Amino acid sequence: MSTSADNNDIEEGLAFRPKFDASGLVTCVATDIGTGEVLMVAHMNDEALRKTIASGEAWYFSRSRNALWRKGETSGQVQRVVEMRMDCDQDAVWIRVEQTGAACHTGRRSCFYRAVRSGEGGAQLSFVDADRLFDPKDVYGK
Amino acid sequence: MSTSADNNDIEEGLAFRPKFDASGLVTCVATDIGTGEVLMVAHMNDEALRKTIASGEAWYFSRSRNALWRKGETSGQVQRVVEMRMDCDQDAVWIRVEQTGAACHTGRRSCFYRAVRSGEGGAQLSFVDADRLFDPKDVYGK
Repeated sequence: MSTSADNNDIEEGLAFRPKFDASGLVTCVATDIGTGEVLMVAHMNDEALRKTIASGEAWYFSRSRNALWRKGETSGQVQRVVEMRMDCDQDAVWIRVEQTGAACHTGRRSCFYRAVRSGEGGAQLSFVDADRLFDPKDVYGK
Repeated sequence: MSTSADNNDIEEGLAFRPKFDASGLVTCVATDIGTGEVLMVAHMNDEALRKTIASGEAWYFSRSRNALWRKGETSGQVQRVVEMRMDCDQDAVWIRVEQTGAACHTGRRSCFYRAVRSGEGGAQLSFVDADRLFDPKDVYGK
């Protein structure tokens, strides 16, 4: 059980104590150092966090592939980490990155290439900043 | 089971089809419309998404309190949503907001008020942009 003292340490302390979820992961938000745009949201396990901090390049943990993953290892679209920050309860990190090319596996600069708008019959999406910088077929062969 | 056709619909389609996790949640990143700063990372369930889209103010679902929550309902620190975007696999949303006061329950503008740096004996935190805009004791009475 957590206590108020624990919470105070986690929120106000300077010890790096990531709070991993039941799957051993924290959430990571990557933003573009130049534009502030959110490029992607992904997850890091303990090893991905350590490798990111040590190398200065973003490593993630893929839930779908159940594997550690260096961003750009297949696509070449690496992320150089300029700054990493931890949130209040230490279950999310924010990295400001220099993104080579496109962050999204669909070839877009950002994974967030569709806006959500209220429409008749409910919410709808529309493309925004959705130009592809590469063709996924060329990069991933599928 | 998902198929390639399903994935293509989710990634390239314009239907709003949020992919909720086992707890019925998607991740939400809120950034400041002016500065691009990441203010907070939280979660939305179906109802929080609908209320956010309909009202133009951010609603979340608190995992710790297991309750729907209008951002600012206790603190007054509301978030007006200027734009909402959905990511490629529709399990994360990004909202650009006008934040009244502070986003963080600790009184800081952003929840990300500590930088992570590599140090002797491992990673360490240091305060960055950590001034409090309000005293949580005054606002939450604890």
